[in-house]
Amino acid sequence: MTVAAPVALGEIVGADEVLDTPALVVDRAILERNIAEMAAFARSAGVTLRPHIKTHKTPEIMRLQLAAGAVGATCAKIGEAEVMVAAGGATDILLAYPTVGEPKIRRLLALMERARVTVALDSREAAGALSRAMAAAGRTLEVYVEVNTGQDRAGARVGDEAAALARDLARLPGLRVTGLMTHEGQANAAAPDDIEGIALAAGRALVETAHRLRAEGLAIAHVSVGSTPAAAYTPTVPGVTEMRPGTYVFNDVAGFRYGKLGPDRCALRVAATVVSRPAADRAVLDAGAKALALDKSLAHPGHGWIVGHERAEIARLSEEHGVVVLPEEERDAFRVGDRIEIVPNHVCVAVNLADELLIVDGGRVAETWAIAARGRVR
Amino acid sequence: MTVAAPVALGEIVGADEVLDTPALVVDRAILERNIAEMAAFARSAGVTLRPHIKTHKTPEIMRLQLAAGAVGATCAKIGEAEVMVAAGGATDILLAYPTVGEPKIRRLLALMERARVTVALDSREAAGALSRAMAAAGRTLEVYVEVNTGQDRAGARVGDEAAALARDLARLPGLRVTGLMTHEGQANAAAPDDIEGIALAAGRALVETAHRLRAEGLAIAHVSVGSTPAAAYTPTVPGVTEMRPGTYVFNDVAGFRYGKLGPDRCALRVAATVVSRPAADRAVLDAGAKALALDKSLAHPGHGWIVGHERAEIARLSEEHGVVVLPEEERDAFRVGDRIEIVPNHVCVAVNLADELLIVDGGRVAETWAIAARGRVR
Repeated sequence: MTVAAPVALGEIVGADEVLDTPALVVDRAILERNIAEMAAFARSAGVTLRPHIKTHKTPEIMRLQLAAGAVGATCAKIGEAEVMVAAGGATDILLAYPTVGEPKIRRLLALMERARVTVALDSREAAGALSRAMAAAGRTLEVYVEVNTGQDRAGARVGDEAAALARDLARLPGLRVTGLMTHEGQANAAAPDDIEGIALAAGRALVETAHRLRAEGLAIAHVSVGSTPAAAYTPTVPGVTEMRPGTYVFNDVAGFRYGKLGPDRCALRVAATVVSRPAADRAVLDAGAKALALDKSLAHPGHGWIVGHERAEIARLSEEHGVVVLPEEERDAFRVGDRIEIVPNHVCVAVNLADELLIVDGGRVAETWAIAARGRVR
Repeated sequence: MTVAAPVALGEIVGADEVLDTPALVVDRAILERNIAEMAAFARSAGVTLRPHIKTHKTPEIMRLQLAAGAVGATCAKIGEAEVMVAAGGATDILLAYPTVGEPKIRRLLALMERARVTVALDSREAAGALSRAMAAAGRTLEVYVEVNTGQDRAGARVGDEAAALARDLARLPGLRVTGLMTHEGQANAAAPDDIEGIALAAGRALVETAHRLRAEGLAIAHVSVGSTPAAAYTPTVPGVTEMRPGTYVFNDVAGFRYGKLGPDRCALRVAATVVSRPAADRAVLDAGAKALALDKSLAHPGHGWIVGHERAEIARLSEEHGVVVLPEEERDAFRVGDRIEIVPNHVCVAVNLADELLIVDGGRVAETWAIAARGRVR
């Protein structure tokens, strides 16, 4: 696995006037390449691209995705959608998460005044409350039925159960069922050699359920699939119409296990400083769980990939301390004050812990972008 | 273990106009009791109380701690201290973390214009840079030497190594070594029956090093210890002068394993809503890793303690989904739209993910407090 080139921070070490740590630095060239390649893939697969903004939470990056051909944005929470519409100018939003509770229904109605909104639902209870609210407001809400193709998180089970739910929801006033969606996250947990087969099976089962509903007269226009690791496979299934990858804009250590993407395709790095060398085999970084989060990866030991020092393991995190265990040959490389770059294990959650992205272009911090939808959990 | 009474959210269920979820709700009565009892304990032990604000990050709560007798605040990062001085009016800050790098040294000098600041250091490198900056600015910085009493994170090893570091730092212009500090976090990882012995041993070793340095003429006025789990023990060691607990204001599931504190002493709960019931034995909550964080606890399986439903296990978290596995007797209790309360495994990191605390008093949300130092990792 090759080390990133260009290394975002490598170019700007010493730029103390702009680079206090820990900080999230983004290599603009890698970011733009990642966005362009996924857009090209979607075109080649004949599906629309509706990226999940959870990875970046940043209006500027959503606009790059739209400019590259994305049809709209996928958000989890209404708060994310509110930011993407207000700050990012998005006009077509999929809320890939059930809207439950009066406060959120009120906000959904307000959001619908400003953008086209589709909501994913997987229960008659949530759909019933939305139906009553839409009918009372004289509105019609487009709905994707969320389908469980094997992840066993949310969603009605693909096949009979999902078809029955879709039929019931299609009968409710104020709702119009226009699609089926799945998040085939079970592929991410599988052995690398198994991911293609699992992703294809998930896509085929979803398409089959859509065909069955169409035969009954339901206008299922959209068959939508998610997950960056499975992105190369599920969208190629005939009948899938839309893909919703998120992580691909930045990539992270979790993706290394598939053998296709290494650190050179990871656009975001956590810049950190060595703040302590309490023992010959131990360094402490100023990036702890409040910068990297605790997510582990099957691809690499420890809590992140230190660019250029991959045998130095971030063995433990507390809130503000990243404890690095140093092999013999790395003991001179981590001096107090040294700057390092870490590719996070799970980039989405690292982004959610920060307030801004430093955009590096030509070896300089060219711009600072606010992570405007950070923490929008409601 | 008894279930919390009063249950913060139990009183305000249905108050949809104020309570969208996920949200952090704080029972003011429990909070005030926790603050008062720790202040009383510090007085009885004859030590000063300098609470770590990392748990709450909220100026209003720091002010309650100061009003109850705390001598000042402990912060990890300068960004936290900046907030506590500007928004909270703190006048005496311990930065229990090494200050490394020019940007932080500049901010430290600015902070010293507004408050008394002591910095913990564990390296000659960090101390040298600070010494040069202080001498150039004509200032003197008070320093605690950070000592490793067994946690093996940061800090010079207690005894010879710490004494040698203290001697060297005391010779540097612009610095005045006034204390030794340790974070006896190794106690938290120990078996509950072992915590007292480990904490006492850590305190005694630290006091012994302080005595040795005093015999050489160093004016070691402060011997400072940390950690809420060890708080009942380490401060009782003769010669310890200061304690820095943090978690005690809220408490969390991690503390249950010591058998002294249960959910009735947990002031903060994550209010969540059931958003999906995809299977008879599975419910999905709108609180995932972006609300609860991934920290596990040795005290309870899963990702938090559901108040009143402790046998329902939050088995898996993704960013926005908390997947609850329901035992037979809980299957009717988790309906779509139901509100529940979760005591987080590790409350400090849950607070760091949110923007505000809803303060519940007499069954109503009485105030909203901004978590003003959230995310201040620099």
